[in-house]
Amino acid sequence: MADTPIIDRLALIGIGLIGSSIARAAKANGLAGHIAISSRTAATLARAEELGLGDSYHEDAGEAVKDADLVIVSVPVGASGAVAAAIGPHLKPGAIVSDAGSVKTSVVRQMAPELPDGVHFIPAHPVAGTEYSGPDAGFADLFENRWCILTPLPGTEAQAIERLSAFWRGCGADIEIMSAEHHDLVLAVTSHIPHLIAYNIVGTADDLEAVTETEVMKFSAGGFRDFTRIAASDPTMWRDVFLHNKEAVLEVLGRFTEDLFALQRSIRWGEGDELFELFSRTRSIRRGIIEAGQETEAPDFGRPHGKSDGDPAE
Amino acid sequence: MADTPIIDRLALIGIGLIGSSIARAAKANGLAGHIAISSRTAATLARAEELGLGDSYHEDAGEAVKDADLVIVSVPVGASGAVAAAIGPHLKPGAIVSDAGSVKTSVVRQMAPELPDGVHFIPAHPVAGTEYSGPDAGFADLFENRWCILTPLPGTEAQAIERLSAFWRGCGADIEIMSAEHHDLVLAVTSHIPHLIAYNIVGTADDLEAVTETEVMKFSAGGFRDFTRIAASDPTMWRDVFLHNKEAVLEVLGRFTEDLFALQRSIRWGEGDELFELFSRTRSIRRGIIEAGQETEAPDFGRPHGKSDGDPAE
Repeated sequence: MADTPIIDRLALIGIGLIGSSIARAAKANGLAGHIAISSRTAATLARAEELGLGDSYHEDAGEAVKDADLVIVSVPVGASGAVAAAIGPHLKPGAIVSDAGSVKTSVVRQMAPELPDGVHFIPAHPVAGTEYSGPDAGFADLFENRWCILTPLPGTEAQAIERLSAFWRGCGADIEIMSAEHHDLVLAVTSHIPHLIAYNIVGTADDLEAVTETEVMKFSAGGFRDFTRIAASDPTMWRDVFLHNKEAVLEVLGRFTEDLFALQRSIRWGEGDELFELFSRTRSIRRGIIEAGQETEAPDFGRPHGKSDGDPAE
Repeated sequence: MADTPIIDRLALIGIGLIGSSIARAAKANGLAGHIAISSRTAATLARAEELGLGDSYHEDAGEAVKDADLVIVSVPVGASGAVAAAIGPHLKPGAIVSDAGSVKTSVVRQMAPELPDGVHFIPAHPVAGTEYSGPDAGFADLFENRWCILTPLPGTEAQAIERLSAFWRGCGADIEIMSAEHHDLVLAVTSHIPHLIAYNIVGTADDLEAVTETEVMKFSAGGFRDFTRIAASDPTMWRDVFLHNKEAVLEVLGRFTEDLFALQRSIRWGEGDELFELFSRTRSIRRGIIEAGQETEAPDFGRPHGKSDGDPAE
């Protein structure tokens, strides 16, 4: 717990999984003197108030950001421009404006023109989440041991970057700084293409005529169910990610497809050594991710086993 | 705990993740009077003995199956034929011979000709596992609440099928019966293609020049790490699966690729409604899998969160 909060007044625009986790982390770690919350959906805002996530609640985003030292926008990336336009005129000089979007070049393109001079705009992306959405889904340690990537524009004041970094470190995250362009390529690989492939295989399985939906569900423990987790992520958020990171996604997807065709050919021609070589190499990458502290080494993600596994009734 | 064991003498050929889990489940539930274990790898057999998994240990598979009432072969599917040839002459009349392979038509093709008349050959596949291998990786409740698929040939005695079913139910599994051909198509969808895609994306990420391996590992919590689990599965086992279920795998892969190209086109042309429709549909399939008792509803598979997450040192 910090003696003096890093931020006097924090404004959170959007209070879903990410926004509500920031609110909880800020509260748990005493990072903000006052937390102002805004959501464009009345029911979501009411729920945030019921959960006691903040100190004040505002239907109007412009009102929420008044006098705020740090504003974090956590909305689907397609809505970033509209939010920036709504809050721009109400920001106090010297305020830091940041976001939590999964795409950065598009967010810069949308938000920067709407923000006044004298405001520090620092795009950010905490690489953390679950497959659930909404204010109830958040929790205080979502960001612990995870990376928050900042993509400041050239010329951004070092002091502002350091203040935002201190806030995220207070939430448990580690900080990495890179360009928005590089961010979008890296995340296309580590997040966007994995989601696209997961959505696709789940869709393909659902569409097959020769295998029933019941069979797909019953025998999903063979591997399929792993994909359904990220394919259960928020549809609006992910639609926007793909529409707003088109170039990087199409580029990495091209590589994926090329590699998949090579693998398909190896299967067709019975090239066992090629398969064995790839399957051995991929094993060591998981080992590296575990060593990097980004994955559990418990078998099966530590999923519960035994009679009560997956049965909400028990 | 059964009063009288279902099986007098059980022989396990192969004592890796699956074989050793069968041994543990049989012991924990009193399913067999004697458990004879065989492995072609001396170190694995010695380890099984150290772990006390059985009652007798045999380098020679033929010796292990002598007088056995039930023989379960748990080896990479490419080795099925050789094992059947080795044990065939030593089987007692009336013995049940089964396996645990992930492919069934090829196993039938390999094993059936090597087995003598008067033996009940019932191919089986318990749809359960983790990404770890070897006798240490097994555990007694691996099969609990999971499906074991039997693919008996036409004309197989009902009593033998019932006895094998009782054994698997004793291990905690539910029984499903289908043809070997249908099994191979269903598992291509729910297991083989998911593994292939996971291996492929992990390989693609590893090969990119513009994104470093360190970046892939650091930012893998965006979704990528989910894929690395099944891409860390046993390379020999999975090489054999793809070589031995070629037709069904190529058929389902063709559908997957076709759907992926449609999705790619939607992204290129900015068809947000198409994306949203798919992403909403896939969400309900996960819900169905949770309701079918085949998945946990805990966020993020119930992975540990917070400081100790994934750090073996803590």
